[in-house]
Amino acid sequence: MFVIGERINGMFRSVARAIRERDAAAIADLARRQVAAGAQALDLNTGPTGDDPAEVMTWLVQTVQEAVDVPLSMDSPKPAVVAAGLRACRGRAIINSTTGARERLDALLPLAQEFGASLIALTIDERGIPRNAAARAEIALGIVAAAVEAGLPTDRLYLDPIVLPVSAAQDQCREALEAIGAFRSLCQPPPHILIGLSNVSQGAPNRPLINRTYLVMAMALGVDAAIADPLDRDLMDALRTASILLNQEIYAEGYLQPQPAA
Amino acid sequence: MFVIGERINGMFRSVARAIRERDAAAIADLARRQVAAGAQALDLNTGPTGDDPAEVMTWLVQTVQEAVDVPLSMDSPKPAVVAAGLRACRGRAIINSTTGARERLDALLPLAQEFGASLIALTIDERGIPRNAAARAEIALGIVAAAVEAGLPTDRLYLDPIVLPVSAAQDQCREALEAIGAFRSLCQPPPHILIGLSNVSQGAPNRPLINRTYLVMAMALGVDAAIADPLDRDLMDALRTASILLNQEIYAEGYLQPQPAA
Repeated sequence: MFVIGERINGMFRSVARAIRERDAAAIADLARRQVAAGAQALDLNTGPTGDDPAEVMTWLVQTVQEAVDVPLSMDSPKPAVVAAGLRACRGRAIINSTTGARERLDALLPLAQEFGASLIALTIDERGIPRNAAARAEIALGIVAAAVEAGLPTDRLYLDPIVLPVSAAQDQCREALEAIGAFRSLCQPPPHILIGLSNVSQGAPNRPLINRTYLVMAMALGVDAAIADPLDRDLMDALRTASILLNQEIYAEGYLQPQPAA
Repeated sequence: MFVIGERINGMFRSVARAIRERDAAAIADLARRQVAAGAQALDLNTGPTGDDPAEVMTWLVQTVQEAVDVPLSMDSPKPAVVAAGLRACRGRAIINSTTGARERLDALLPLAQEFGASLIALTIDERGIPRNAAARAEIALGIVAAAVEAGLPTDRLYLDPIVLPVSAAQDQCREALEAIGAFRSLCQPPPHILIGLSNVSQGAPNRPLINRTYLVMAMALGVDAAIADPLDRDLMDALRTASILLNQEIYAEGYLQPQPAA
């Protein structure tokens, strides 16, 4: 499982403050803690900001790559902000995200190619969020076709089946799970399948329990990447246990001991 | 999810004592507590006993059905002990278990028919435990064929993909999960798919975490029944959360509040 740490996001109040004050130590600390807890990449999202978001993204990338050496995910709805992050990034980068909408694919596929980045693709399009697994798969197929046409190797594509809050759209939790199997068979090499996990528990009590239960189910069905909170220890324990039960990681009695920090 | 409570089993020391002393109050209490915690059926296993196991099974059935009104699962390797339990049982019964071995099918399918019982069938046969998902599916097909031939409706069949301890046979955890999808498509109406959950964590630390992680994964893949410990509160919370995320149970904010005892 490829875990992209979600915590450097201006939607969190403490991160918004650190961005506003350009508190590099606070951002670096959050980067290091997430990687020590098991994140293999870090998502960077400026959140709403009074400053130029491209300049903020550039600062985030520079700050985080001084602290840790993992792929960075440029998380913004604005291609210009994504591009600013890609230009600043020395290592591997991930674009978060395109959709199946033609306009976004046309803006972001060339960026993925230019910077050798991976590309997260939400299976939504101009019509909005699909209502069932089949509609998700239909959009996924269009995304795969566009990626192939643009020359992007499909193993740099992360298809996202769109996880909605169980409290608001319960049936869609199942539809997203059912889409996973369909996504896997779309192309060779198969695309990665990623979920933005925390959305499933928005507005619900018991958020950690809902998050880890959904993650484990999604892993059983073939998800191999998640944007999630690596500082949630119970979540990471469930993830490692699921990896072992799926025979993706070697079982050892001490598997839940804390990992030594890198 | 259909949960068969596993706790009335002579392998537990306290149950062995209660059986030895014919302590009906202790057995009745264990029955009531499991049902209150969410068990929809109860497994009865005499364990090794110095007494006549058929007589012990008869006593267990009589004792438990005085306390609770749920289906009872006659868990014994000996058809005569199973038959004794079935004769004593006033309500719905489950036979635990046949295998794909001809001799056992010939002994237990007629009992299922005679008593209108459901039948748990382990996908092992004369050759022992299958080594992968395909071999499990092959045995399952033989079991389904025998059930159909004997006139047993396939929705009274509970196919068990054989869960082995992760500490001893890690790869088999995944093979059992992969068998689940194959089992579902074997016949119409589809058979139930059941796992004997606790076996997965035999000999491992963190048993509850391993158990609930495996249960949630198995549910995602289509398991609809488990022999498990309903007194494990975290397990039952994970089960209910998974049921909700699979849209099998209605979401409500209070879904983890304790259920009123029956």
